[in-house]
Amino acid sequence: MCATTLGDRRERALGAGTPLFYSTPLQIVRGEGVYLFDADGRRYVDMYNNVPCVGHANPHVVEAMRRQQATLNVHSRYLHEGIVAFAERLAALHCPSIECVLFSCSGTEANEAALRMARMATGKRGIICTNATYHGNSETVSKLTRLEADSTIYPDVRAIPFPEKLRPLLPGASDADLVDAYLERLRAAILSLEQSGAGFAGLIVCSILANEGLPNIPAGFMARAAEIVRAAGGLVIADEVQAGYCRTGKWWGYEVTGFAPDIAVTGKPMGNGLPLAATAASRRIMDGFRAKTRYFNTFASSPLQAAVGMAVLDVIERDGLRHNAANVGGALKTALVERKPRCAAIADVRGHGLFVGVEIVERDDGITPDRDGAITIVNRLKDRGFLTSNAGAHSNIVKIRPPLPFAQQHAEAFLEAFDETMREFNG
Amino acid sequence: MCATTLGDRRERALGAGTPLFYSTPLQIVRGEGVYLFDADGRRYVDMYNNVPCVGHANPHVVEAMRRQQATLNVHSRYLHEGIVAFAERLAALHCPSIECVLFSCSGTEANEAALRMARMATGKRGIICTNATYHGNSETVSKLTRLEADSTIYPDVRAIPFPEKLRPLLPGASDADLVDAYLERLRAAILSLEQSGAGFAGLIVCSILANEGLPNIPAGFMARAAEIVRAAGGLVIADEVQAGYCRTGKWWGYEVTGFAPDIAVTGKPMGNGLPLAATAASRRIMDGFRAKTRYFNTFASSPLQAAVGMAVLDVIERDGLRHNAANVGGALKTALVERKPRCAAIADVRGHGLFVGVEIVERDDGITPDRDGAITIVNRLKDRGFLTSNAGAHSNIVKIRPPLPFAQQHAEAFLEAFDETMREFNG
Repeated sequence: MCATTLGDRRERALGAGTPLFYSTPLQIVRGEGVYLFDADGRRYVDMYNNVPCVGHANPHVVEAMRRQQATLNVHSRYLHEGIVAFAERLAALHCPSIECVLFSCSGTEANEAALRMARMATGKRGIICTNATYHGNSETVSKLTRLEADSTIYPDVRAIPFPEKLRPLLPGASDADLVDAYLERLRAAILSLEQSGAGFAGLIVCSILANEGLPNIPAGFMARAAEIVRAAGGLVIADEVQAGYCRTGKWWGYEVTGFAPDIAVTGKPMGNGLPLAATAASRRIMDGFRAKTRYFNTFASSPLQAAVGMAVLDVIERDGLRHNAANVGGALKTALVERKPRCAAIADVRGHGLFVGVEIVERDDGITPDRDGAITIVNRLKDRGFLTSNAGAHSNIVKIRPPLPFAQQHAEAFLEAFDETMREFNG
Repeated sequence: MCATTLGDRRERALGAGTPLFYSTPLQIVRGEGVYLFDADGRRYVDMYNNVPCVGHANPHVVEAMRRQQATLNVHSRYLHEGIVAFAERLAALHCPSIECVLFSCSGTEANEAALRMARMATGKRGIICTNATYHGNSETVSKLTRLEADSTIYPDVRAIPFPEKLRPLLPGASDADLVDAYLERLRAAILSLEQSGAGFAGLIVCSILANEGLPNIPAGFMARAAEIVRAAGGLVIADEVQAGYCRTGKWWGYEVTGFAPDIAVTGKPMGNGLPLAATAASRRIMDGFRAKTRYFNTFASSPLQAAVGMAVLDVIERDGLRHNAANVGGALKTALVERKPRCAAIADVRGHGLFVGVEIVERDDGITPDRDGAITIVNRLKDRGFLTSNAGAHSNIVKIRPPLPFAQQHAEAFLEAFDETMREFNG
């Protein structure tokens, strides 16, 4: 089956415009560790996929999945040791305020539950997010997608400008003044919700502002924002769907950016591809939610989710993938930062652990986002055998987020391809 | 680990009030075919679980899952033969108006997508459901849960009384008059939405009214309701999460109750426990949705969903499970109907294929719903080794919905246990 024909069939079967990566889409047929292979047998280094966090086709996960599916996979209204042990283990990995876990099948479902928890715990409706975020695709959660700052098109949602230092709210200001300026917008959003009658239920934020483009956050912003939220009676929801699970070299993104959430949401990497997500919270918040909703999720809290989720944690710990993310990711970022002075199209290299963003801008002014440039670079890196994507508030970030077993040798090979690509790109 | 201690740990780890079945909960550790086994090695005939539709631990599904997870499991923005072939096969099983498929991870996500499709296709907001239904646990979809008929607490949702013959809107009326009476409520709900400014986007309905309690629907209601919906510019969404996949002895519940939907939603049985759901529609509806939303779902449309979903369809076809559901289910229902005259607590035996409900009522008047009685019967059947649950608009239905390989021998063993239980129950 040639790729063109498959693409046509795909449009007919799944609908025209079903998203695809790359100007010439890839037909991927096999994965192993950090490698993906296309239908022609060509090997690519996967530098995009965080879902297969312990590596494509990881044999320990495959065997856990097989064994559990061959033993029992049923809903959660029977007692089962596996799911309880998994919840205990997950809660213990979090900060002390996180004690209980509610499992679901996707980040969307987990963020839905988080919003409902915050609204039930506070008795208020109003949620604040940043203006360049994404928390899922349901109607309620998708209201948070790239909502304009200060917009009042939804009665119960407000967006604030995400904190950053490249295009700051107050150009030239000190970090301290910049923090104050961003916090002022948070206070204004809380007030706007309170005055609207919705009241203020909480702030939801990706702990490392991944979709925003991994900005450098003025020091202290997150902790002070959390204080302001709590002083106003709201809860802090950390969306760890991209930030968590050792991606940053720490277990949780909130450890990197320095705050403790009331509710933590995890998803993508939890099941190495098995649909699995979680909303974790204090006992008080969870018990209140359970009592009011009798929440049930057909496929979630299953023995299969438990077995696979445990296997993923096993591999992360056994293979030292947290340290690997810190070390290999740290070295990769340093190497990319070194390249910035010799490449006018790179405005910034940012990130944490194995999550790095390279911000591409117009060479003339060094600041205007160059989305098309980022897309060109992503496609050329693909042609050289390295899979990335473009992302960020202006879609002009080359997003590097490989499976966690990504090693020094892969980073070195990538840097060679990156240098060639940027030489070509700079003309 | 004794069950009490596990139960305590479960409350602490998952939250107090996390739902459990049976007055003494079961600790299930293993499944095989239609059997479940508890921690003490006791065997139960599973007459509740439709998710493991081709049988617990089905080896063909286990092997398909293992093989695919060991080969490739990645998101859908690469071309992949598997998911296209699965979508083509699924669409071909539906009525001609269904041409394209959007995959997701749960019935909730699939119904979310269905509502968004209907709203985008019509440019209106208003959705009509029945007053004793359930379509999922997200904020938008959970508005449809057991909403009172004629309620206007939500601007964009109305509920209509579900059509039934046991406690009909017009007691003593002919089927034809009864259909007219129920359709009048549908017309009134459409008018109410139109007058409210929300406009009318569509009707969402479980094709066999499963959560309502599998009522006998006055003949012709569904087809005429669909006509009225379309004449008013709305779309008909068939929720086939429980009704579909040969449960009724036909592929789809809408074949049983006689209508053709514009959008069909499937879920529970699709992956034999793997989170997998689908929203299927015409090319026009799907293309419009794709163009407007660029919908993406991290875990959905994956090679794993495709491989497992195909394996489930293979087993259904290879093992003749549709005919089995029709034959064994039909005989079981007939045998239960025969018992009604000698048991005053049974008001009705209803259902289709391997989905049967036994309605339990007060013996005094033969009509007042006896929820506690149904719960007692369910618990006693469990003690005898047969797992059912209670359900329906009044929670007084003994719900029988076994995995599809449920055989005549299981039905016979169940009938013996049922007779003993009812003798005991009748005192």
